[in-house]
Amino acid sequence: MTRPSNPVMDRQIGLSMKALDHGFVRLVDYMGDDAAVVQAARVSYGSGTKTVNEDRGLLRYLLRQRHTTPFEMCEIKLHVKLPVFVARQWIRHRTANVNEYSARYSILDNEFYIPETDDIMPQSKTNKQGRDGALPEDVRNAMRETISMHSASSYDLYEELHTGWPWFHADGNRVSPDEDIDQHDEGHGLAREMSRMVLPPNIYTQWYWKVDLHNLLHFLSLRADPHAQYEIRVYADLICDLVRQWCPMTFEAFEDYVMYAQRFSRMDMEALKHIAANTPITTVLEAVANMDSSERERGELLTKLGVQRD
Amino acid sequence: MTRPSNPVMDRQIGLSMKALDHGFVRLVDYMGDDAAVVQAARVSYGSGTKTVNEDRGLLRYLLRQRHTTPFEMCEIKLHVKLPVFVARQWIRHRTANVNEYSARYSILDNEFYIPETDDIMPQSKTNKQGRDGALPEDVRNAMRETISMHSASSYDLYEELHTGWPWFHADGNRVSPDEDIDQHDEGHGLAREMSRMVLPPNIYTQWYWKVDLHNLLHFLSLRADPHAQYEIRVYADLICDLVRQWCPMTFEAFEDYVMYAQRFSRMDMEALKHIAANTPITTVLEAVANMDSSERERGELLTKLGVQRD
Amino acid sequence: MTRPSNPVMDRQIGLSMKALDHGFVRLVDYMGDDAAVVQAARVSYGSGTKTVNEDRGLLRYLLRQRHTTPFEMCEIKLHVKLPVFVARQWIRHRTANVNEYSARYSILDNEFYIPETDDIMPQSKTNKQGRDGALPEDVRNAMRETISMHSASSYDLYEELHTGWPWFHADGNRVSPDEDIDQHDEGHGLAREMSRMVLPPNIYTQWYWKVDLHNLLHFLSLRADPHAQYEIRVYADLICDLVRQWCPMTFEAFEDYVMYAQRFSRMDMEALKHIAANTPITTVLEAVANMDSSERERGELLTKLGVQRD
Amino acid sequence: MTRPSNPVMDRQIGLSMKALDHGFVRLVDYMGDDAAVVQAARVSYGSGTKTVNEDRGLLRYLLRQRHTTPFEMCEIKLHVKLPVFVARQWIRHRTANVNEYSARYSILDNEFYIPETDDIMPQSKTNKQGRDGALPEDVRNAMRETISMHSASSYDLYEELHTGWPWFHADGNRVSPDEDIDQHDEGHGLAREMSRMVLPPNIYTQWYWKVDLHNLLHFLSLRADPHAQYEIRVYADLICDLVRQWCPMTFEAFEDYVMYAQRFSRMDMEALKHIAANTPITTVLEAVANMDSSERERGELLTKLGVQRD
Repeated sequence: MTRPSNPVMDRQIGLSMKALDHGFVRLVDYMGDDAAVVQAARVSYGSGTKTVNEDRGLLRYLLRQRHTTPFEMCEIKLHVKLPVFVARQWIRHRTANVNEYSARYSILDNEFYIPETDDIMPQSKTNKQGRDGALPEDVRNAMRETISMHSASSYDLYEELHTGWPWFHADGNRVSPDEDIDQHDEGHGLAREMSRMVLPPNIYTQWYWKVDLHNLLHFLSLRADPHAQYEIRVYADLICDLVRQWCPMTFEAFEDYVMYAQRFSRMDMEALKHIAANTPITTVLEAVANMDSSERERGELLTKLGVQRD
Repeated sequence: MTRPSNPVMDRQIGLSMKALDHGFVRLVDYMGDDAAVVQAARVSYGSGTKTVNEDRGLLRYLLRQRHTTPFEMCEIKLHVKLPVFVARQWIRHRTANVNEYSARYSILDNEFYIPETDDIMPQSKTNKQGRDGALPEDVRNAMRETISMHSASSYDLYEELHTGWPWFHADGNRVSPDEDIDQHDEGHGLAREMSRMVLPPNIYTQWYWKVDLHNLLHFLSLRADPHAQYEIRVYADLICDLVRQWCPMTFEAFEDYVMYAQRFSRMDMEALKHIAANTPITTVLEAVANMDSSERERGELLTKLGVQRD
Repeated sequence: MTRPSNPVMDRQIGLSMKALDHGFVRLVDYMGDDAAVVQAARVSYGSGTKTVNEDRGLLRYLLRQRHTTPFEMCEIKLHVKLPVFVARQWIRHRTANVNEYSARYSILDNEFYIPETDDIMPQSKTNKQGRDGALPEDVRNAMRETISMHSASSYDLYEELHTGWPWFHADGNRVSPDEDIDQHDEGHGLAREMSRMVLPPNIYTQWYWKVDLHNLLHFLSLRADPHAQYEIRVYADLICDLVRQWCPMTFEAFEDYVMYAQRFSRMDMEALKHIAANTPITTVLEAVANMDSSERERGELLTKLGVQRD
Repeated sequence: MTRPSNPVMDRQIGLSMKALDHGFVRLVDYMGDDAAVVQAARVSYGSGTKTVNEDRGLLRYLLRQRHTTPFEMCEIKLHVKLPVFVARQWIRHRTANVNEYSARYSILDNEFYIPETDDIMPQSKTNKQGRDGALPEDVRNAMRETISMHSASSYDLYEELHTGWPWFHADGNRVSPDEDIDQHDEGHGLAREMSRMVLPPNIYTQWYWKVDLHNLLHFLSLRADPHAQYEIRVYADLICDLVRQWCPMTFEAFEDYVMYAQRFSRMDMEALKHIAANTPITTVLEAVANMDSSERERGELLTKLGVQRD
């Protein structure tokens, strides 16, 4: 036997997909694919490999029925460069492995996320945790400029703090304005772990992030959602594109049963059943007949709606 | 301030709820309640306590929108006695704390789960991992008797192994049939960690199980479900009763938005929209008007169905 | 039975312990205590409660032998106010429950951590991720002042962004310098989720944090360690004080077997055995005899050193 | 760039290593290697790749200092066949992904672990949860035979239950002793989820198990330990062999700093310092000089012992 691999993914290893102004998502490694999910599920069921079509059916069944453990059998590792405020949302997904650049150990680069003027929006009137609507162009330009200047001056301050420059000589004497500052001696820098306190969270950090397919899909269901903040959604959308190539059958099932699915509450269900009961049966059956679903799922829909086929 | 407590729960501490023939669920301790969920959520939102009605609305909103972290702020600890095969399913829920009786360290009691004849059923024709239908009473009785006898003789064997009795004297000589077996010396027992190999998994074990409310609800959504094996469902149902008393508003929301909710796939949604579009708008609006939901949820249902209230 | 409680802890509920300049650690709730650890361990061992002295011995045995699951049976919930850069380190401990103040949803308060001049230090020469040594007082004062001014001006900018004030009128016209700015109309604020991008990470956030005792001790072993950054150590030290009151026997064992213990590598062990073999046996035995340990642990030490008591 | 791979491991994919009498460990897939650990660590440190020797030093440093996250960047997937009682211990390691053969869905094979007579031992006198010492050969043979016969008869019973054979005809009439049992009809089988209740836990199950390198090493530190039950240790030892080939530098460090390391308590440390203080300094320095360690670690050992080098 040879190690499972996916040629489409193999070609992507090491390539960066650009995100926001200076960020990226880069594929480092992966383990498994659609077939690996099926293979693990078949251990549970005690049966061997089948046709591609049966594999697809099994995958869709697993995802539909929340049999999540086989999807944990695939793993992906990404190198991501992202603003700190995005990292703060991302890290809340706990079932993942992370190695982040350490600002205690190293100097952060002078790279900040400066939003495009088109992305600068007011507080949403309806969504207390989102943005929506439009600001006058002048306002947007001014805000962008303000954020940009604040970022630059914060970084200058960071450098001054960790290099100890140009306020003081190593003997503690203040540098006088008429001194040639290139000549002054070094040595009064503030520790890196403290200097970083002045760097606003639109600065870029980077990390290696490793996660299994099940937990990745959960991440995507929350972060590629319209309610997620735009800046993390940009990353989630890129990762969606990657998963679509990595595990196409799983991703298709994810779109059908999670992303474009809807949950109906107990109260919703009562209303739906009322509607279905007061609609001509031919209309219901016609709708069901046109579904791009398995026969089994059509039957299940009728059951959910409380409709008897005959 | 005083420690949050719930008098109904306080009275239950230490009481056992009987499960199956020899099992139980016993409340050991708990932390938090509905108010603790709200309190934690309000930290996120930066606002203080509100009326009971607002609390209920917030709880329902959180559960509906999958804001799961506030529900992790409650914790419950149970002492459970359960057959080993049930424990094997239960332990798959990884986000929980467990201390199980150790058969390496101690002798297991002679208690086995012997199913009631009413619960003895054939393999389901439609569900490859379930039971369904009926067996003749004679068959059921014989099977029950068989399981019962097998359990008893397995335990006898277990005792013989770990005590080393009555086959051999400590000097290795076989006990002869005419010896008075009460007189023979001890000392040739097999180690407990090996003797247990003969004990079938309907033997009872016990453990302390501690879990947060969010993960408990997830457990209940899977194990109080009709697809779960009957024997674990008995435990899940008892725990449902406990949670209903512990966090009544959360449990009500759980029933409305999870337990009695339905997920509709992308394909289902297309069919639903077709039905809604071909049903008199008055029928749809009437169904929605009768919903026992918030105004907001009624609007959301119409949106999901692609219907404009006009 | 009644719910386990600890009067010392009960009195602390709701009280804040001050941390850094504006932060705090506040006990919200707890579950279990030393006795709960013992109780859960005894389920594994199939035996009932014992004397206090036996309980202490069992606790110490469990902690020494890395039987960690009984310590997961206690839980604590804290309300913590802390600088964002401390929160970023803290959140890496994944086995915990967190609800953080949301800057997408609410306005952050104008409170920043400004280090005391005594805590302002240069980069350590020996520890690439720490601070050590001294800076001239002038330098320290200047740095403190700089951080303070930067924090204040960042907050001003934050307010200007999220209120949209005072650059523009709601009609998009720029506010002229001679206008009475209190009079200008509102409405061009930037969304909160964007405005926060200018707030440096010494701003305070807050969260509810809930964790089990085992994972808390692991957190403390890393964060109350001299290698941890000073600012998170302040919090860890306060929590140590709390755990000492909550579970005194466990905390004592933690100090003896983890905090003040040392790990010796395979190579260290060879050197140790060489030393022990070349030291008069009376010296070794004398050292062992004076140990404040159980007889069993004394024997184990001799075994580790390869010394036979003869 | 190409996908990281390890030719030694690639050759092992799909090969089974025999464990116990019918079990195995089979490599299914892996992600990363020693270099991947280093690569992730270097993201934290913001520096690129180095020489092999520097990599080894970094790996050893990371493991020694408990910087565990880079080791989470490697992942391995194994197909394991193991007795159920071993699986019950194994599954307690929660940070892993598992897909087990389902006895609700499929029929278990007639394969049981029957211990070799050499492995049949009495309860240990000193270790309450272990085996130690010797039993007379007669006793061992008798016990082995007993376990073997019990396993076989349990499986017969299992088959009788799930096939419903040979007690009853499908019409519910009892099969008479003189009937040709091959001829009787099928159809009164007990559901698989119930029939399995008679199968003792030395029956073999199988699963796919996927885990990251950090959590795998933790598993090995507990399960390849002499205190672990022999039957799980057999598996842990095989996996040790695999990890040694997969990540040789990491495994060497693991042996040096974990497996053959010892922890000394606060009390142990006092005794050690007493010994070191009362031993000729030349003896201590000689022992240290002979260490197969880095210069830094030699210094650290002296510091731990409270000895000043000059």
